[in-house]
Amino acid sequence: MATIKAAILGFGTVGQGIYHILNEKRQELREKLGVELEVTKILVTDASRERVPGTHHLMTESIDEVLAEKGLQVVFEAIVNEEPAFSYLKQAVAHKCHVITANKVMFAKRGAELEALAKANGVFVGYEASVAGGVPIIKTMKNILLVNDVSRVQGILNGTTNYILTKMRAEGWSFDDALKEAQSLGYAEADPFNDVSGQDAFKKLMILSSLAFDEQPNWSDVEVIGIEKITAAQVAEATEKGLRYRHVAEVEKRANGEIHAKVSPLLVDKEHPLYPVDDVFNAVAMETNYIGTLSITGPGAGMYPTASVMVEDYAEIIGKRAGFTVTI
Amino acid sequence: MATIKAAILGFGTVGQGIYHILNEKRQELREKLGVELEVTKILVTDASRERVPGTHHLMTESIDEVLAEKGLQVVFEAIVNEEPAFSYLKQAVAHKCHVITANKVMFAKRGAELEALAKANGVFVGYEASVAGGVPIIKTMKNILLVNDVSRVQGILNGTTNYILTKMRAEGWSFDDALKEAQSLGYAEADPFNDVSGQDAFKKLMILSSLAFDEQPNWSDVEVIGIEKITAAQVAEATEKGLRYRHVAEVEKRANGEIHAKVSPLLVDKEHPLYPVDDVFNAVAMETNYIGTLSITGPGAGMYPTASVMVEDYAEIIGKRAGFTVTI
Repeated sequence: MATIKAAILGFGTVGQGIYHILNEKRQELREKLGVELEVTKILVTDASRERVPGTHHLMTESIDEVLAEKGLQVVFEAIVNEEPAFSYLKQAVAHKCHVITANKVMFAKRGAELEALAKANGVFVGYEASVAGGVPIIKTMKNILLVNDVSRVQGILNGTTNYILTKMRAEGWSFDDALKEAQSLGYAEADPFNDVSGQDAFKKLMILSSLAFDEQPNWSDVEVIGIEKITAAQVAEATEKGLRYRHVAEVEKRANGEIHAKVSPLLVDKEHPLYPVDDVFNAVAMETNYIGTLSITGPGAGMYPTASVMVEDYAEIIGKRAGFTVTI
Repeated sequence: MATIKAAILGFGTVGQGIYHILNEKRQELREKLGVELEVTKILVTDASRERVPGTHHLMTESIDEVLAEKGLQVVFEAIVNEEPAFSYLKQAVAHKCHVITANKVMFAKRGAELEALAKANGVFVGYEASVAGGVPIIKTMKNILLVNDVSRVQGILNGTTNYILTKMRAEGWSFDDALKEAQSLGYAEADPFNDVSGQDAFKKLMILSSLAFDEQPNWSDVEVIGIEKITAAQVAEATEKGLRYRHVAEVEKRANGEIHAKVSPLLVDKEHPLYPVDDVFNAVAMETNYIGTLSITGPGAGMYPTASVMVEDYAEIIGKRAGFTVTI
């Protein structure tokens, strides 16, 4: 049986999740896809620290060493920030590797460029994990767009802020206490700025804008309001009125063709589809011309939800190439 | 440019929807897929009655005439009931046609057989439209199952009963009045038995059971309770308590490996994900091992939602075959 060699760039929560799932599902993936997947390189910043038992011999600090691996065909990328991730993936694509990324900051800014390079090199880019964790919004939207036009996308795209808002309401905690708990559970980074300011949701929204409308608004025109100023008293007052705060990102194409986007807290009542979406859940609603409004809800963060959709990206890429000898 | 010939079997609401979408989207589909799709035959029971202007020359009452069409490659089927639909599709598959069906009654019972025949003939079966109208539950579950195991599926799978329960609550109508309105809007059939008894939801649930667990429970073991006995007084009492009736279908694989399914009315409170799912909307929640719980909500009925997912099935089949010359 053919073996496909893969590398993992970045070996934090998500990178380790990919490694675990590929091991746990080795036999099942082999049976379903007809090929064996083997992780042969793991790129880290400190190769002396073994994070997962049995991976020491796979670790390297050099992207050149990763790409020099003979027969490498798939690169999973789970690094934070635009660089060096983009440069690495650019090189990987030039080496005819399919790339699968969870990196929203990189993909929001350089996604179109990366996809063009991949197309020129005959490989695929999977980026399901870059938006809404385990919620397969990218695949669903791509599929819908084969026939439907999307006019508006609205959603909760950050699990950390939704968790904080949920705890402020359900437990009566202050913003600071809820944030601390989110950090201790590993939802929020040590520097929570990107989450609570709305910047993380904004990047994901730009990825959805590119997909839905083939363009993004000027980033500087987009109003991005965080949740850091919402007080426990405001949350309690809203709860008394039967309302809930949600941190909502939305982008729409207006009648004049202009793309308009916004990220801000929103008060919703119990008739609103986002009302029951609590904790780290994400939700995305798309307004379309034929289907109408379609919504997907699921865990927006976490090792396994995010890693599993990256492995699904891999399986989808393999499935696309398997068993078809006909060109049309 | 290559032209692909297609036939439509059954020219009621959904069949006509397919025809309209294929016309409206002709150029876009050509550009996206690199092939032109042309409807060359429409199978009806009375070919003398032209339902859509300009289609008279396409209509025939003979399946043999449809399948004799030279170069026919795709068959859209939007007939009700198991027969003659299954026999027609069996013949179509033997003629090496891809088949795309909206027929839940046929597919619940004969889906596995049809898929095996299709596989043997090197063609695909699309059945997204057979469950939950415009909600792409089949594709989403197929994708998830590449990596995840599904343990439980729960949802509102019938738009008519959800519409009736919504109107009984929101307007204070009786069951009979709400049913009449559903019929006048074209949601419910002249004989509403299949909808209100839960039989329609049951068939859809069996399709989801096959997909999630590769098997169905014995049909006679499944408790199927309709909504016809719910009174306006019961609905009013529930509303007073902050509860809502939903008609819920669920199937799960228990620890002992047994598949257990049920269709019945359920009272849900405002924390339940199905609480805000009103009118003809359908919703499906899947419990999975890696992702957790994933839900999709959207219009469960109607000409365009249902027809558009059938055209998406077609686009997906074409996409699978386009531009790949490599076998693995």
